[in-house]
Amino acid sequence: MIDRNITKVQHQISLNSRIIKNKHKAGVVWLTGLSASGKSTIAFAVEKLLYEKNYQIYALDGDNLRHGLNDDLGFSQPDREENIRRVSEVSALMSRAGFIVISSFISPFEKDRDNARKICKQDFYEIFIDANLETCEKRDPKELYAKARKGIIKDFTGIDSPYEKPKKPDLIIKNNHNNQDESIKILESFIVEKFKT
Amino acid sequence: MIDRNITKVQHQISLNSRIIKNKHKAGVVWLTGLSASGKSTIAFAVEKLLYEKNYQIYALDGDNLRHGLNDDLGFSQPDREENIRRVSEVSALMSRAGFIVISSFISPFEKDRDNARKICKQDFYEIFIDANLETCEKRDPKELYAKARKGIIKDFTGIDSPYEKPKKPDLIIKNNHNNQDESIKILESFIVEKFKT
Repeated sequence: MIDRNITKVQHQISLNSRIIKNKHKAGVVWLTGLSASGKSTIAFAVEKLLYEKNYQIYALDGDNLRHGLNDDLGFSQPDREENIRRVSEVSALMSRAGFIVISSFISPFEKDRDNARKICKQDFYEIFIDANLETCEKRDPKELYAKARKGIIKDFTGIDSPYEKPKKPDLIIKNNHNNQDESIKILESFIVEKFKT
Repeated sequence: MIDRNITKVQHQISLNSRIIKNKHKAGVVWLTGLSASGKSTIAFAVEKLLYEKNYQIYALDGDNLRHGLNDDLGFSQPDREENIRRVSEVSALMSRAGFIVISSFISPFEKDRDNARKICKQDFYEIFIDANLETCEKRDPKELYAKARKGIIKDFTGIDSPYEKPKKPDLIIKNNHNNQDESIKILESFIVEKFKT
């Protein structure tokens, strides 16, 4: 913050009060993995399942945020870093409002994911949606890999930009085969368990 | 957005479903006014009152956001513009999750407030917290006016940076005298009325 004294104004409603009201903890579930690994599909499915069980839950995802908050950013390394920083701050903010936030972002760099954890503080879980490049490239629902291979898209994770696998994720979900329903169940159970009050 | 095709992934939970569940509409209540006009105090009080009546409500405020999401921004005109743009996007995002968001920002420029309205789309209300400069300067709880008068702080709204009064606000709350309780009640009633389903 530049050039000014800023005093934090206190909310009169504590996070704890929101947690008691919601009957579950609040925090951030961070899904990382290659494009087309299944992050958003899993996230939106789990959002629905838990929403219907009365959870305060919201899924944030790279594609949606790049249309709004981050529409000034590209895919260079500094822009990716700023993208993840802003998204982490938004995730943290929504979790302070009592939500379980499922944040699905390729987030290829370990440093940026570590930064997300720092920003979000407690109740942050890093989940590696582990599908290999071959699988993702076969799925390619948006034909992004095809374009990246042709050089139409630059700095594409897995092709000409690296993906750093999480070293110590809180959970790994293997999502290579047609096992999406199982992956959704695994994440749902994980959240129910971790966010119990 | 730069350099890539981005497809919006659809939430499986519609905003309408959240509105039915919450029993009130979602949207953004935008408080604008000078520093020390009483915006945040009113916002946090109304947040508490309506939270206790089971509203999904959250107050965002400049001081809090400048510590996180916007801590790379200063107070020049382009930085203020970017500050308000990001905050508008976050307000819109949280309202799409079903919240009534009370956003308190000096937001001195009409152009930026109009942009906020555009970003937030429907159910956006501009509320002018109308306290005159003399009153605000007397209150000066953070001694910011004193510092601005001495030139320690630059670009301070009302001193060496302009405040453009809203031309057609949805509500004006006069907050010059010791009438804070009344101001809080006015805003509370306004929200209850406007966000009825």
